[in-house]
Amino acid sequence: MANQKNAKKQKNQSKGKSSNNQLALPKMEEKFSEWFNEVIFQADIIDYRYNLKGCGVWLGYGFKVRKNTFQVIRDLLDSTPVPHDEMLFPMLIPEPQFMKEAETVKGFEEEVYWVKDGGTTPLDVKLALRPTSETAMYPMAAKWIRSHQDLPLKTYQVANMFRYEGKNTRPLIRVREITTFKEAHTYHKNAETCEEQIREAMESYSRFFDTLGVPYIKTQRPKWDTFPGANYTIAYDCIFPQKHRALQIGTVHNLGTTFAKTFDIKYEDKEGNQQYVHQTCYGISERAIAALIASHGDDKGLKLPPMIAPIQAVIVPILFKNKEEAVLKASEEFFQKVRKAGLRVHFDKRDMSSGKKYFHWELRGVPIRIEIGPRDIEKGNVCLVRRDTREKIFIAQTEAITKINELLDLIQQEMWDSAKKLHASWITRTNDLDEALDFIESNQGIAEVPFCGSEECAAEIEQRVDGLKFLGIPDEYLPALHKEVKEESDIYCIHCSKPVKQYWRIGRPY
Amino acid sequence: MANQKNAKKQKNQSKGKSSNNQLALPKMEEKFSEWFNEVIFQADIIDYRYNLKGCGVWLGYGFKVRKNTFQVIRDLLDSTPVPHDEMLFPMLIPEPQFMKEAETVKGFEEEVYWVKDGGTTPLDVKLALRPTSETAMYPMAAKWIRSHQDLPLKTYQVANMFRYEGKNTRPLIRVREITTFKEAHTYHKNAETCEEQIREAMESYSRFFDTLGVPYIKTQRPKWDTFPGANYTIAYDCIFPQKHRALQIGTVHNLGTTFAKTFDIKYEDKEGNQQYVHQTCYGISERAIAALIASHGDDKGLKLPPMIAPIQAVIVPILFKNKEEAVLKASEEFFQKVRKAGLRVHFDKRDMSSGKKYFHWELRGVPIRIEIGPRDIEKGNVCLVRRDTREKIFIAQTEAITKINELLDLIQQEMWDSAKKLHASWITRTNDLDEALDFIESNQGIAEVPFCGSEECAAEIEQRVDGLKFLGIPDEYLPALHKEVKEESDIYCIHCSKPVKQYWRIGRPY
Repeated sequence: MANQKNAKKQKNQSKGKSSNNQLALPKMEEKFSEWFNEVIFQADIIDYRYNLKGCGVWLGYGFKVRKNTFQVIRDLLDSTPVPHDEMLFPMLIPEPQFMKEAETVKGFEEEVYWVKDGGTTPLDVKLALRPTSETAMYPMAAKWIRSHQDLPLKTYQVANMFRYEGKNTRPLIRVREITTFKEAHTYHKNAETCEEQIREAMESYSRFFDTLGVPYIKTQRPKWDTFPGANYTIAYDCIFPQKHRALQIGTVHNLGTTFAKTFDIKYEDKEGNQQYVHQTCYGISERAIAALIASHGDDKGLKLPPMIAPIQAVIVPILFKNKEEAVLKASEEFFQKVRKAGLRVHFDKRDMSSGKKYFHWELRGVPIRIEIGPRDIEKGNVCLVRRDTREKIFIAQTEAITKINELLDLIQQEMWDSAKKLHASWITRTNDLDEALDFIESNQGIAEVPFCGSEECAAEIEQRVDGLKFLGIPDEYLPALHKEVKEESDIYCIHCSKPVKQYWRIGRPY
Repeated sequence: MANQKNAKKQKNQSKGKSSNNQLALPKMEEKFSEWFNEVIFQADIIDYRYNLKGCGVWLGYGFKVRKNTFQVIRDLLDSTPVPHDEMLFPMLIPEPQFMKEAETVKGFEEEVYWVKDGGTTPLDVKLALRPTSETAMYPMAAKWIRSHQDLPLKTYQVANMFRYEGKNTRPLIRVREITTFKEAHTYHKNAETCEEQIREAMESYSRFFDTLGVPYIKTQRPKWDTFPGANYTIAYDCIFPQKHRALQIGTVHNLGTTFAKTFDIKYEDKEGNQQYVHQTCYGISERAIAALIASHGDDKGLKLPPMIAPIQAVIVPILFKNKEEAVLKASEEFFQKVRKAGLRVHFDKRDMSSGKKYFHWELRGVPIRIEIGPRDIEKGNVCLVRRDTREKIFIAQTEAITKINELLDLIQQEMWDSAKKLHASWITRTNDLDEALDFIESNQGIAEVPFCGSEECAAEIEQRVDGLKFLGIPDEYLPALHKEVKEESDIYCIHCSKPVKQYWRIGRPY
């Protein structure tokens, strides 16, 4: 779908991707879906005109956004008290090994691409393109773990995954090649240390999304929607501006000993007894970048948080006749000064009107534009323009580095605050089911309602609104995450009227 | 083969990979091949016990070696005067698009893995796992390039590639999943700027291998062994210690307009005429890491050049009874000091004998071991031990940072010098064919002989020694690389006795 649209649009373009595109974006609020597809293409993030549905090319600028984004989670995982080892596992999984998961838990075999030929020869054993890596990893973990001294073992990889999506594909959200999937897998001695790992993982993930300025809610999925084989699944959802649906952007699973039993992952404890390991796994994909884009953009294009932006500030010289040379010289000097201060700065020297340059860099979400004109030079000033608020700030060149650094911090914080505020307005808490269903049906967001937890009650309510799902239990009620768990009083299940102690989240998932 | 061997060995091991292995390595000189396979496994580089031939798992330590190695080439390509844009292309290539290359040049279809099923449904169009990315990239370049202003366009990606290797697989050298292939593709206005790019690429590659301390020769391949479709191919070969065969570790191709014509990549020049672009491409794979390992190791394990080593210095406290606490405290303080100086340092606090620790870190090739014992503390000293020469150096703690930095530079330089010296001894230049063939047949290395360049002459000589190949023309004779090309005089083709102006390289490729 996206490919067709982009392909169609391309016909109207006289220039290629690396030339200067000056097409206006669709209005973000009115046509979010079109805006989203277009901004990804026009801002040089991904080009989906590749000749295979659900597969796109990360362009130069987009690749840097991707790199900076995943560097944040890498840094977090590399620096936990017991660090996670980044590894890389093979992409192909032989069928018998792949099907081992299906024996005990649900398998992925229906969603998998199968390699059947090597050259012109049919293979003896067909090979799955990994849709996720449990079956590639756990047989190796069984070889690596022998003694309690080998635990905890914490590993992760960032790699491409494949899902044969029958449904409509969507840029960064529902794709056939997930180019960037970070999956962590950890192994522990017992249930207690395993649960500690869940808390550590949640802390890393929260810090990751905080850095991206992406608002989220943490929800334990209902039993019937838990990752197959897991004791429980906690998900990060971001309410997506399009129809205010819940987009799952991260999951954390407590796997208990299910997979250890399937793949025979045991260790010898201090007393010499063989014990099964306890496991967790947690994943984040390029959907994090979809959420980043959706949480901050406007009709002019992207807004990137300074910690992620490939270019934090762009210098645009304001050229007047006969004063070009002085302005270019002053701009170059200022550029070198900012660069040496360790900021990611770009000096746009192109022979092009300032207006076109503004358009170009606003589209790409550069947090600060620095304008330098003849008058600024006379006064010893530069002019800073914020991408997020469009505010103009004149500062003395002598104070520039300090001011720019302060402004980047401020933008980072305010972008996040304003995204969180908006996000919060898309969640309602009510004891009235009709009100909740109306909120959801009219695409206002998700609702929190008193609920008993029964699958039967849930099923009956889900029938009342098309696409409605029980997302699960808000994190404040989860004993895994809080020493003192919150309990509500005087509330009653919206379906069976039993007294209950928790609100549940319901809404339409993306 | 490697998988079987490693699997067999594993049976003799009582402990897993993450425990402390204390198996002796095979002697490097006597049994290079076994040494190579073992050191990769024991030093935590790659575990090939994965259940699919030619596919292995990059372990935590190996992953860091891989990351540091490819960061060097990324930095070089990112910082050329016109920078290369890192991108990422889809891994799957639809058959009709893939076969387009085969129409004009030789295709890879015999070596390719084909995806035929999505879930349980046969696909309408079968999909190739990329063996290299021309056919994925060039149709996109045709969309991006419209005008002369779009040129030069320089792109690269680092990604996994697949080759259905029928032959015996070898760790890092002949694998079915090439986990790490860096391929650069550039687009230019004319033949002249295209040739300039070849020089830039060669400069980047030479600096890359220099940083790895990997010795190499640059050779233009014979016409009959040029990359299909290219005007010419220049290869980097490293003579591998095993039987002194030539291992191709990098290639640079001048593609001219062949692919531009196949994929219709045109631009509008200043006069408004449509012109085909001129192209280059150049690739480096994880074979660079094979060469790095082979060029420097010894019977005790790896030797890593300081610029690549994940750990540049390891601190081992020497613990005597009743003095443990003072030594651990002094070691911790020293560790913090070295760490703050920006060096990659590790403090080995494990409860284990110093001897075992030495063995562990020597195996993993850490350039400097820092020993701190009670006597060192008394004297205000630390003891540095070089991994490459095993030399011990006592220095005052106050001068330590300066000295360690100097020593790392020295080790980097001397490792490279000594590898180059050894490598040079494996090349002989002679006007006597029998001498050359004897040198090659007795596995002493490669030979340089006067040669006329005719394919017929080459074919007849190649028959005389099993596996012998004409590697091509040494770089000093290449007009593409040198303004003043060297010409020999008074030499005659070793086969047809015509007077010739160049030596050629012959040997057995790996």
